[in-house]
Amino acid sequence: MKAARLYGAKDVRVEEVSDLPLSGPNAVVEVEWCGICGSDLHFYLGGGVSGVELQDKCIMGHEICGRVVYAPPGSPVEQGQAVMVDPRIYCTSCSNCTKSRTNGCNVLRGLGVIGSSGGLSERVLVRPSMLYALPDSVDLSTAALIEPLAVAMHGVKLSGILQGDRDAATALILGGGPVGIGVVQVLRAFGVTKILVSEPSTARREYVQRFGVTAFDPLAVDVKTESLAATGQRGVDVVFDCAGAAAALKDGLGSLCFGGRYVNLALWETEIPLSLTELTRREIHLVGSCAYDDSDFKETVDALIEGKFTDLSSMVTARIPLDDIVTKGLNALLEEGEKHIKIMVNPKL
Amino acid sequence: MKAARLYGAKDVRVEEVSDLPLSGPNAVVEVEWCGICGSDLHFYLGGGVSGVELQDKCIMGHEICGRVVYAPPGSPVEQGQAVMVDPRIYCTSCSNCTKSRTNGCNVLRGLGVIGSSGGLSERVLVRPSMLYALPDSVDLSTAALIEPLAVAMHGVKLSGILQGDRDAATALILGGGPVGIGVVQVLRAFGVTKILVSEPSTARREYVQRFGVTAFDPLAVDVKTESLAATGQRGVDVVFDCAGAAAALKDGLGSLCFGGRYVNLALWETEIPLSLTELTRREIHLVGSCAYDDSDFKETVDALIEGKFTDLSSMVTARIPLDDIVTKGLNALLEEGEKHIKIMVNPKL
Repeated sequence: MKAARLYGAKDVRVEEVSDLPLSGPNAVVEVEWCGICGSDLHFYLGGGVSGVELQDKCIMGHEICGRVVYAPPGSPVEQGQAVMVDPRIYCTSCSNCTKSRTNGCNVLRGLGVIGSSGGLSERVLVRPSMLYALPDSVDLSTAALIEPLAVAMHGVKLSGILQGDRDAATALILGGGPVGIGVVQVLRAFGVTKILVSEPSTARREYVQRFGVTAFDPLAVDVKTESLAATGQRGVDVVFDCAGAAAALKDGLGSLCFGGRYVNLALWETEIPLSLTELTRREIHLVGSCAYDDSDFKETVDALIEGKFTDLSSMVTARIPLDDIVTKGLNALLEEGEKHIKIMVNPKL
Repeated sequence: MKAARLYGAKDVRVEEVSDLPLSGPNAVVEVEWCGICGSDLHFYLGGGVSGVELQDKCIMGHEICGRVVYAPPGSPVEQGQAVMVDPRIYCTSCSNCTKSRTNGCNVLRGLGVIGSSGGLSERVLVRPSMLYALPDSVDLSTAALIEPLAVAMHGVKLSGILQGDRDAATALILGGGPVGIGVVQVLRAFGVTKILVSEPSTARREYVQRFGVTAFDPLAVDVKTESLAATGQRGVDVVFDCAGAAAALKDGLGSLCFGGRYVNLALWETEIPLSLTELTRREIHLVGSCAYDDSDFKETVDALIEGKFTDLSSMVTARIPLDDIVTKGLNALLEEGEKHIKIMVNPKL
């Protein structure tokens, strides 16, 4: 079968690899669509992502939907079933897994990342328990968005905003890229409507406004002033950092209300100076949101099936064959990333 | 009446000031004991504390217990009643006060700090609603500890440790000074028994061990190794930073379990570099604990009345007359602070 393997920095090759056995304890999924993630770009450029590394010559891709071509006895799904794949591989037995904190598994690996081949391939091996059945009503050409949406779901749940008055709460999202848009989608799906997005790119601001949010340019206006004006001078309840930039962090902290939550979903290349005294005087909760757990993934699948997300197809800005993964996928994202939200790859094209 | 007023850096004078009117909307409390706080030392040295400043020639002191000598009509307490004073002066009408977040009042002031005279005086004016009646069973010579214990109470409640399995949870306290000991007291009062204290001073380690905690020297052992060993390699659930030192912060973050909480109660002079990527990968919650709110104060009063705190008298390491506030109080804390936990001042001596 064909698959995209990473040989080294900027060296991804689509080539023939061994077919997968239609036997044994793992299911085999024929990939319909696999999204390209920002972390895939980091891997492509030759860098790991916050300590996560790719195996040598690993088949990339972890945003995977497809159809089951082999299911071992006892699987929750049957052959032919359309499925979304939770790409995580956790141990089930460490101190975090046994507390349902599978996102903190002490030896966490993942399809297309550490330890197992991924979905930029015609077929992929998956633990049966990580397969989520998708009904015929779901459009498979957008279903792989479930994975990045689950990342956003976890951050939104950590923020506590769903436990408060969702009508009254205001969220500020720093960065209108794929992660920021995912957070917008999840917030809206769960009834939070007062959403501000701070994003310097005009194209991205114009795009994100279709979701009914207030988008502004942090290079042209003062983010704190905008945030206070939007909240009767109170400050926003939650900031989602989907930018990973020092200036945005300063804007975000300044915009929070007393007791507000700052949820980081961004990757940071270096340490950043923070005033713990300011955080303390204003009782700010700073929390890092790491991937997602089983319940986040399931709730995201359910929300997508129930049609709670808005205009998903607009988030897919290119659909390409696997053969074009480098030119029209990875390089396109690197060279003209602001034109894209999500590029989906289809090994059958 | 006699009172200790701050004229400037290292210039505190005990002098006669005008008597207080036994009329009007505020109660008058005859001070029995007033504790000296670390922030009083900052004021004495001429520096504000995280943006909080003293008024010119303000009477210092905010850890105050005493007896009511005048109570306006409708007060919850009567003349002669022994009381603890909540020294905060909040507006009751801002966006935080109306949400019971009185510790975040937009114009928060306090007795002995900004806006009103404090308890290092024979008498003090107090809003009646800020008085908590103390029964005869309470020893007034330790009751003023309620104020610093309320600071610890707020931090412990923010940590979430009381919502989990208190028998199983492990807390690591960085710093065995007055705030750290307050956290130990509150944790023990509310059933958390697995407590580690990291403290470089031998005298303080020896003292804090009387509360049944495991105390170690971070200069002699590796704090992360000790923390992992004490928790079956899992990491501690909560860290309370009562030190405000970069090395301790590094120790504390490294010692936390995945998803653990880092509660800062310390003051920091400068910004500190943090890895948001590390916080995110390990999903650490970093939260600053700011003073206390009404419920924290009431619960601390109740806990003291119910005898839930241990060996309070040992926390008071000196009892001095108001006339000696500079020599045996402020200077003693500055020059031999590690010998002391709390110095109590009595204007009647």
